[in-house]
Formats: sequence, C-alpha cells, structure tokens
Amino acid sequence: MDTPTVDLNADLGEGFGVWQIGDDDAMLDIVTSANVACGFHAGDAATLARTCRAATERGVRIGAQVAYRDLAGFGRRFIDVAPDELTADVIYQIGALQALARAAGSTVTYVKPHGALYNAIVDHEEQAQAVAAAVHATDPGLAVLGLAGSAFLNAAERLGLRTIPEAFADRAYTPDGRLVSRREPGAVLDDADEISHRVASMVRDGTVTAVDGTAIKIHVESVCVHGDSPGAVQIATAVRRRLIADGIAVAPFG
Amino acid sequence: MDTPTVDLNADLGEGFGVWQIGDDDAMLDIVTSANVACGFHAGDAATLARTCRAATERGVRIGAQVAYRDLAGFGRRFIDVAPDELTADVIYQIGALQALARAAGSTVTYVKPHGALYNAIVDHEEQAQAVAAAVHATDPGLAVLGLAGSAFLNAAERLGLRTIPEAFADRAYTPDGRLVSRREPGAVLDDADEISHRVASMVRDGTVTAVDGTAIKIHVESVCVHGDSPGAVQIATAVRRRLIADGIAVAPFG
Amino acid sequence: MDTPTVDLNADLGEGFGVWQIGDDDAMLDIVTSANVACGFHAGDAATLARTCRAATERGVRIGAQVAYRDLAGFGRRFIDVAPDELTADVIYQIGALQALARAAGSTVTYVKPHGALYNAIVDHEEQAQAVAAAVHATDPGLAVLGLAGSAFLNAAERLGLRTIPEAFADRAYTPDGRLVSRREPGAVLDDADEISHRVASMVRDGTVTAVDGTAIKIHVESVCVHGDSPGAVQIATAVRRRLIADGIAVAPFG
Amino acid sequence: MDTPTVDLNADLGEGFGVWQIGDDDAMLDIVTSANVACGFHAGDAATLARTCRAATERGVRIGAQVAYRDLAGFGRRFIDVAPDELTADVIYQIGALQALARAAGSTVTYVKPHGALYNAIVDHEEQAQAVAAAVHATDPGLAVLGLAGSAFLNAAERLGLRTIPEAFADRAYTPDGRLVSRREPGAVLDDADEISHRVASMVRDGTVTAVDGTAIKIHVESVCVHGDSPGAVQIATAVRRRLIADGIAVAPFG
Repeated sequence: MDTPTVDLNADLGEGFGVWQIGDDDAMLDIVTSANVACGFHAGDAATLARTCRAATERGVRIGAQVAYRDLAGFGRRFIDVAPDELTADVIYQIGALQALARAAGSTVTYVKPHGALYNAIVDHEEQAQAVAAAVHATDPGLAVLGLAGSAFLNAAERLGLRTIPEAFADRAYTPDGRLVSRREPGAVLDDADEISHRVASMVRDGTVTAVDGTAIKIHVESVCVHGDSPGAVQIATAVRRRLIADGIAVAPFG
Repeated sequence: MDTPTVDLNADLGEGFGVWQIGDDDAMLDIVTSANVACGFHAGDAATLARTCRAATERGVRIGAQVAYRDLAGFGRRFIDVAPDELTADVIYQIGALQALARAAGSTVTYVKPHGALYNAIVDHEEQAQAVAAAVHATDPGLAVLGLAGSAFLNAAERLGLRTIPEAFADRAYTPDGRLVSRREPGAVLDDADEISHRVASMVRDGTVTAVDGTAIKIHVESVCVHGDSPGAVQIATAVRRRLIADGIAVAPFG
Repeated sequence: MDTPTVDLNADLGEGFGVWQIGDDDAMLDIVTSANVACGFHAGDAATLARTCRAATERGVRIGAQVAYRDLAGFGRRFIDVAPDELTADVIYQIGALQALARAAGSTVTYVKPHGALYNAIVDHEEQAQAVAAAVHATDPGLAVLGLAGSAFLNAAERLGLRTIPEAFADRAYTPDGRLVSRREPGAVLDDADEISHRVASMVRDGTVTAVDGTAIKIHVESVCVHGDSPGAVQIATAVRRRLIADGIAVAPFG
Repeated sequence: MDTPTVDLNADLGEGFGVWQIGDDDAMLDIVTSANVACGFHAGDAATLARTCRAATERGVRIGAQVAYRDLAGFGRRFIDVAPDELTADVIYQIGALQALARAAGSTVTYVKPHGALYNAIVDHEEQAQAVAAAVHATDPGLAVLGLAGSAFLNAAERLGLRTIPEAFADRAYTPDGRLVSRREPGAVLDDADEISHRVASMVRDGTVTAVDGTAIKIHVESVCVHGDSPGAVQIATAVRRRLIADGIAVAPFG
C-alpha cells in the first residue's frame, strides 16, 4: 500500500525593500513548496533573489505567487483588470521569478495566485481564463495550485496544465467546499492541535468538517500553512509533526 | 570580399498604460534589433507583450532594455543603487521580458541598459559589474550592447559574454570616443543627410569626426537610431536608405 | 431675467514624467474649470505644478481630480479598496494638489473623482461616502462635481458640501439619466455640431434626449469636455462657441 | 536663568500597507516632534492618517519627512533628480501630509528631509536650494530641521525660514561636525548610558566629542532618536530620562 503523501506550501518573499514580513527561514524548514512573491503585491528583486537562494539551499521547490499590481494593498483588493492585461501581467511576473530562480540554481515549477486574485478566480471566469492562459503561454509544463472546483483550476485543466488542489490548514469551509469569508466569525482556526488533526484527516480520509457540522469530501495534494506571525509558525510546525506522526509523508507534489 | 554589415537598434515599448511614446510600428520597419523596455523605466506588461508580438511578426530581434526602477524619471536619473540590488533588478527585468518574448514566439537575445544606467556604467565599475553579472547569471548566451571601451562592455567581456559595440547615429563624439553630454551645444545632430553619411562612414571606414574635428577610430557592430518624434523616424529612415545605397547590409549582429 | 450660465470643465495634467496626453494648453483656453490629476492615476508633481501655473495664468479654476491608486491602469479599473483607506487616499491627493496650487498662486476649489472611481460611486454607497467624507475632512468649503442623483453627490449633500451636477458633452444618456456604458454602441457622440446643440439645449432647457428617444430632464451646472485628441479639442471649441452664440455665459460655477 | 530645553524628534509613519516598521506608539510617548513620512519613501495614506491622529492625541508636533520618490529603496539611495522636479516633489509631499494632519485636527509645523536626501543636501547646493524653495513656496511659516552648517539650512535661512539645528543621539561626529559615514566602524553608538550622557552634554554644554577625541562645539535645538528596534526604543527612553534627570526640559522647539 502506498504511503499517503502531501505537499506543504507557504507564501514567502513577501517583504519589500526594508520591510519584511513573516519568518521565511523558519518556514523553509517546514514546507516543501515555497510560493514566492513576484513583485506585484510584494517582493523587490533583491528580496526575491535571497528567497530563491534560501529555498534552493533547503531543497524547497519554488512557485510563482502571482498577484494584481497593488503594492499599497498587498494584492488583497479586487481589481477589475481586463483579461489581456492580466494575462500579460502574470506572464511578466512568472518570467521575472523564473530568471531569479535560475540564477539561484533552481527553477519555477508551479504558479499560485495570491490574495484577491486567488479569491476572484474561484468564480470570475474571464480572469480565471486569463491567468490560466498566462501560465500556459509561459510554460505548459508549469503546474497550478488552487481551490478544487474553482474556475481557475477548471480553466487550467482545459489547457492541459497539471492542477494541484490545495486545502488551507487554518480556514473553515462551507458545506460546498469553499472557504468561509474572513469577515465571518470562525473563519480562521487558531488551535494548533485542532488544526493539525484536521489537516491529517483531510489528507488521510479525504474529508473535512464544514462550519455547519457536515463532513464534506475534499481532495488535497497540498496544504497551505502560514508564517506571518510567531503563532502561525508554531501552527505550521505542529501540522508537519502531526502528519509525520500519523504516517503521512510530507513531500513535494509529483 | 565580405559585404560590410551593420545592425540597427532602437528603443521600443516605452509607453506605460494609456501613455504611448514614439512610433513603434514605423521603427519596426527600419531596425533589425528592438531594445524593448522591461517595466522599470517604462513598459507595462500589456504594452511589452504587444511590442514583442509586433517585433516577432516582422522578424526583428528582441533585446532587454533594462533600467533603474524609476517610472517617474523614465530611467534618466542616476540612482545610487547597491550592486547586489542592481543585479537582482536586472535579472528580474530580463526574465520578465524573456517570458513575454517566448509567449510571442520569440526570445530575448541581448541586453542593452537604458538612460542613466547606460551612462553610469560607462565609468561606474561597481554598477557595470553588477549589470554584467546579472546578464551572465540570467543566461551566459545573451549578448550585451554598449559603448566600446566602457566599464560595462569590459566587465561583460571578462565574464565571457558576447559584446556588441554600438554607435549613436545622431550624437556628437569627444576625441576620446565618448558621447558629448546632452547639456552641451552640438551634442545632438539633426540633419538627416549629415547623419546618414556619418553613419555610413562609421560602418565602412571605422572612423567618425569628433567635435574638435579630429577623426577618431570607432568599431561599430550596431547603430542606435531613435523613433520618438516624426523627425526622428525620418532620420532613421534616411540612415537605413543611405547604408543600403552605399552597399552596406543592414542585418542583425551575428 | 438672468443670463443662463454654465461652467465648462476638463481633465488636465494627466501626463506622467515624459509621457504627456492631451493638449492642456488648448483646453485652458476653452474651459473655466480644470480637473487637475493628483498623482494616483496620472500626474507626477512637476507636471501638476506646471498645470497649476498654467491654469492660474489663464484664470481657470483648479479642482482636484482624485482617483484610485493605479498608474498602470490610469485609474480606469475598479479597485475594491476599503472605505477608510479610500478616505485617506483622497485626503492625501487633495492636499498634495492644494500645496501645488497655492505655490502657483491659486487654490483648489472643488473635487471631481476620476475614471473608475467616478463610475463606482454613482452607486457604491460605501466608497461614495468615503470620498465625500474625505472632501469634507480636508475642507468643508470644497465643492464636488459629479452626476446628479449619484450616491456621491447625495453623500456630499448630507455632509453639507456644495454639489455641482455635471453633464458630459459627448456621452449618450439612458432614460434614467445615467451614462450609457462605453462598451455599448452609440455611447460616445462624435459630431461636433450635434454635441454643441445638445449641450446648449441641456443648459438652456434642462433637457436631453436619451438613447431611446425620450426627452429627460437634466440639471446641469457644469459640462465636461475632453481634450485628449485633436478631434476632442475641436469639439470642445465648438461647444464653447455654440454656448456663447446662443447667449449662454460660460463662467465658473458660483 | 532659563531652564535648558531641547526637542526630541523621531521618524514615524514609515510603514507601507501591511508592512510596518518601528514602534510608533512607544516613540510617541518619548518624543515631542514626529517626522511623519509623506508617501515617497514610506507611508501609504491610511498609515499616515493613523500616525497623524496618534500624534495629535498625544500632543506631539507633526513634521513632514520628505524624501526622494523611492519606495523600493526606502529613500536611502541618492537620486540625481533635477531641482525643479525635486521642488515639485517636496511641495506635493508636504501638501499631502498637511491635509492628513488637518483632518486629524493638527497641522504640519516643520519639514525634515529623509535618508539619502538628508545626506545629499548637506553639500548638494542645487538640491538643497530646491528643497528649501519647496518649503518656502508651500508655507513660509514652516520650520526646517537639519544639520547645522549644511547647505540646506543655509539655503533655508537665506529664504527667511526658521531653521532648527539637530543632533543625532546615536551617531559619531567628525571633527568638522559632520556625521561619520555609516560604512565606517564606530559610526553608530549603541550604549544607552553613553548615548544619554552624550546628548545631555550636547544640550547643556553645547559640545560633543568627535571620533578623534577632540571636543567640538555643537548647537542643538532638537535631538533625533530612533524607534526601529526594541533596542532603539530603549535608548530613546534612556535619553529622555537622562535629560529630565539632568534638569533639561524636553519640549517642542519654540
């Protein structure tokens, strides 16, 4: 019987110039995939270069965390950008990170949209297709990370891209498998034990308990953990330990 | 005997969003190499994508016109950026354009610094090495365009990069082969006939008359022409016609 | 009997660094109110300083044309910015222009939102209130220009701000007094004669013919004209001439 | 006999969007003058609005910390900007902060250049005059903070502006009263006791010991302290306590 396996991914390189956020070094010891910012919501080039080198040294895989062009809003605000402009913006960002990753001795192997763009293309067909088209135009060998059943993953599949459905370790789910909005109470979990068992159950059993108590099916190849606070790093560490203790291998997606 | 040959290059893709500058379409019928902006001094991604497609359709070669991060100053102001930051900035820019060029069915084959960066690295050893190192780290197969004898071309040569010495069609030269500063009278020539004959003589005879009347030796593999005004396009057209009339082939550098 | 009077306004100062757009000099001879960009969608500080000086020399009134922070999109893309951030962004922009206007010997007397922000706050209550609150917090003596019946003008009125309902010279109207979307055919008129008579009729009779042929009531204190193409300047000139020929005074709103 | 008095100033509001730096709340309990960023090297409008409100609540005076336009470099890189552009940039920044300060119920009373601009205009006559001219054009009632004997303070004095010579609590001085470059060893002091006594001596006796051991005269009306690390806040606290213990009043400059 195969050992159950899961990838752990986190957002990295999200500083800008003197400003830093999150404990990238700690997270690189926990995750197997690094979603590295690409300069549009965060990440000046020197920060990205350092992040790519650090990820390469630890053998952590590099993905392009593409976003709306919005430093002031950290990519967290929906922008009604035209599809052809979005496609060009995403190609630009992936390419910039590809060069920095290559200079660090590694390569970009996947793309994960960030923040408001991630949320928008769960349902926004035009933008979803624009992002998927950008990934395909840049390199059809790139995988994409996203929410199972999202417009984005569907568009990527239609283009023949490898799609990686991911779960969020610390987020509550609706009965139809979407994330509960951060504006609602209970949207974000904060108990390390509860989160760890929940993630192990998602991976092992393919189920998660939604906010209304129903058990829903969930197919997960990667789990997103956060590192933007000391508490977040602690939770990510607990998740990794629980997975390993439960006999689940933590390894990059295939 | 070999036909004398020269490359013609021009700056393209230098708009930003709604703002456009220069007649890119006209210039693509004149030049053999397009120095395409990379987003730091000009060039939003959608503009760059269009420029790459247009260059590809006409068979014009694409180069990365890298610059200081300075949209408000169009890259024309010296910035005392640290070498490691400059290296990362240049890798980022080349990579972004590489992806857009590939999506357009072409590829970036050379790098030409823009504006104040171009001028600074004629003499600024640290920044010159930083830019050369960036080109080499991105792809050692990339050529670099610059001023013969500049710190930049020297640094690039030491790294084993292919260097292309270029001349400026409409600029006056000092007796030691540098450009006369734009702040001095007579720095920019504007007579199409004079410019055309001057360029033909540079290519054919390897000489140009400096501002003090002395004839200086100049080795030229590419000539930079401009397209940012109707008069500029006219001059570029005259240069191309004169070269061909004089039996000089206009073709990409080898 | 009072002479009918109307203000003419246009967007000015919308270049950025080397990039220029529109014929600001020509428009300053036509309009009585200049909506000067504030740096968020267009307008580096030096361009704005020049525009303020030019407006002051001609006795043209200065208004702050505030926008989303979006140079790459020229402020034409809706951004889902939080109300408190939008309020701060608008105060910042007005203040920046106030200082430049004062340095030019003039003052900012009104505020007109630009592009996607203008369109959003026709209906978006939260953003409309955020912008109105920003104007009020900056200076309750400032007037606001906008669409009659919009959420923005309503919010401004509730705060006691002077509101100036404006019409667009070259835009088609729906039967309920909104602008026909630019994405629909016939949204933008281009016949100088038709536009001129239409504007004169709006001002004199308070009516305009909507796209479905019905005559609708419209209360207009200012008319927006454009200057971003030679044709646009010609139309603006025709509008001004027609108004004067019809005995309507062209003068700043009171 | 008059009680000796000194102002304490610190840089505040230097975050950008999600990125924060320094402990602004702690510093507002220590200083009497807040050099608030203006958006060019740091400070999105919402952060600046919050900083202005917090300063106003504590009765701390607000100054405009103007800078080169350089978010990626935090204003720490010299930019060879033309004087008229620099003047416009500085007016723009002061005005933006004035509006936010007014909305918070306070006002901007002085201007202090930041980072590379601060250092450049110690000697760079053209940029020094450009900044002084900007302050004067915005409001001749504004004071300026800077290094005694700098080109900037001299230019400001010639324009009739009130000039406030300041000292740096934690920086070593050359025998001619300039700051030792940060690139040299010993440029930054880090012992809270030593720094505190040094500052008290500067204020009380008008002298400071330079790096070569000579005692030099120094006229100080304000002392700059930092808050960008826990250690820095501790030092600033020690300086304030020492001053008060030594019978020196800590109060805004007159």
